[in-house]
Amino acid sequence: MTQPSVSPIHITKVNGNHIEQTVDLLAVEEPLEIRLGYGPDTLREQRRISVTMRTPGHDFELALGFLLTEGIIASPNEVYKIQYCTELNSIENKENIVRVELKPQVVIDFVKLHRNFYTTSSCGVCGKESIEAIRTSCQLRIENLELRIQKEIIIGLPNKLRAQQSVFEHTGGIHACALFDSEGNLKILREDVGRHNALDKLIGATYHTEFAEVFPSNNSILLLSGRASFELMQKVAMANIPIVCAVGAPSSLAVQTANEFGITLIGFLRGDRFNIYSGADRIA
Amino acid sequence: MTQPSVSPIHITKVNGNHIEQTVDLLAVEEPLEIRLGYGPDTLREQRRISVTMRTPGHDFELALGFLLTEGIIASPNEVYKIQYCTELNSIENKENIVRVELKPQVVIDFVKLHRNFYTTSSCGVCGKESIEAIRTSCQLRIENLELRIQKEIIIGLPNKLRAQQSVFEHTGGIHACALFDSEGNLKILREDVGRHNALDKLIGATYHTEFAEVFPSNNSILLLSGRASFELMQKVAMANIPIVCAVGAPSSLAVQTANEFGITLIGFLRGDRFNIYSGADRIA
Repeated sequence: MTQPSVSPIHITKVNGNHIEQTVDLLAVEEPLEIRLGYGPDTLREQRRISVTMRTPGHDFELALGFLLTEGIIASPNEVYKIQYCTELNSIENKENIVRVELKPQVVIDFVKLHRNFYTTSSCGVCGKESIEAIRTSCQLRIENLELRIQKEIIIGLPNKLRAQQSVFEHTGGIHACALFDSEGNLKILREDVGRHNALDKLIGATYHTEFAEVFPSNNSILLLSGRASFELMQKVAMANIPIVCAVGAPSSLAVQTANEFGITLIGFLRGDRFNIYSGADRIA
Repeated sequence: MTQPSVSPIHITKVNGNHIEQTVDLLAVEEPLEIRLGYGPDTLREQRRISVTMRTPGHDFELALGFLLTEGIIASPNEVYKIQYCTELNSIENKENIVRVELKPQVVIDFVKLHRNFYTTSSCGVCGKESIEAIRTSCQLRIENLELRIQKEIIIGLPNKLRAQQSVFEHTGGIHACALFDSEGNLKILREDVGRHNALDKLIGATYHTEFAEVFPSNNSILLLSGRASFELMQKVAMANIPIVCAVGAPSSLAVQTANEFGITLIGFLRGDRFNIYSGADRIA
């Protein structure tokens, strides 16, 4: 049984002097624990890697996208299988724990992964034990310089996102992101209470169940329903996406990161207006 | 020298067919590493606790609020001194590392703190190694049941917040939160690219430099410029704030957490309308 993504609740609605009892829909927020193990030999060591507050749905994609964009695994080919930890009896909701089983030969440096580690929520520096380390997982540069996108295609993206958004949108509590091809056709849409989760789900969804890439991200445009942060730009770089458009504002470090990685970053994309913060050459 | 909170950048502004080169202001996003040590004997063990992406400013309040709301320290009285790690020569920006020096007799269970730990950004479950542990730091219940606030006071809060917001607001990239007394007078306002940071700064700011509480949070109203998540409600509970109003939507778990802790939670506070999700008895 899949957990719902929206949840009804009885509320008191105040509208001026009119007060009524009614039912409202909320975006569901539940913890997801990601564990790393080995398959088919499931008796080998298993480690807790992360707990994230997410909206249930596309959990395997979230786990795959997270491991890839945080640099914990190098390729989806390292994964043997992803499944819920359904054999656990002590857990209230078994679909809140996902186990990613790696192929037997894959080596993860668990000691390095866990050494001295404590990070805050929303930190954007997952897995990094110190300031010196926050950039180490992204030693790459997107070089798709010949890509050219007409500004009319950019302007049309937000309406295509809104047209496809699900019942989630009515809760008002959801971040969305969508991947478009270079013609502006929507390929993948994902939503979550956490914007980093929405992006991890989307990146995980570019691979099908046998973990081969089904949609080439290096020729695509990412649209974010909210703001652009450092954390999101690092994930974008890891996923090799050359163009990012945000409906909201970018931060200073998001722009700096876009410049370093050669990513085109557009912000405040609303109506027929937008600002280009880096990589303007790709916009015709 | 204090780091700026906003940063100018050259952008390409597209408005229909009009394209111009101009300057835009961005909200600054920089990492802040929080370390725990002991004072006045600074040679005792020092540990890296957290790296968060924050907007520079009120860094000591952020560190204090973080340690309190995550349950790492039990009281501000455990703190001897907070300072930047200015003696480090290898770090590019010395104001990105804050050292919180504890009093000599304070005991922190570093082993427990670091055991098996890896968490994602925006997780809301800071310091928790597993799903079973995410609620352990909040074994409390806000019992200020006699507090009554007129709905006219609630409706007036967002305009008071906007009237006080700084140049930050023009970047469009900032979360704000404000603490009001029970008459609706604004007492403390804090802003940050991360909403959890804004709240940690605000909670840290309820203590003055000698770490005694200067503003009683148990008789106050918190206003959030955005959405209400589980993570924020846990911090609210740790800070003993009885009423939370959000301009945006709450998540399912935010409402559940508010109910568990006895917090009044209001969402979609806009114009003369709002929804009460829990604790309606406190609103007259």
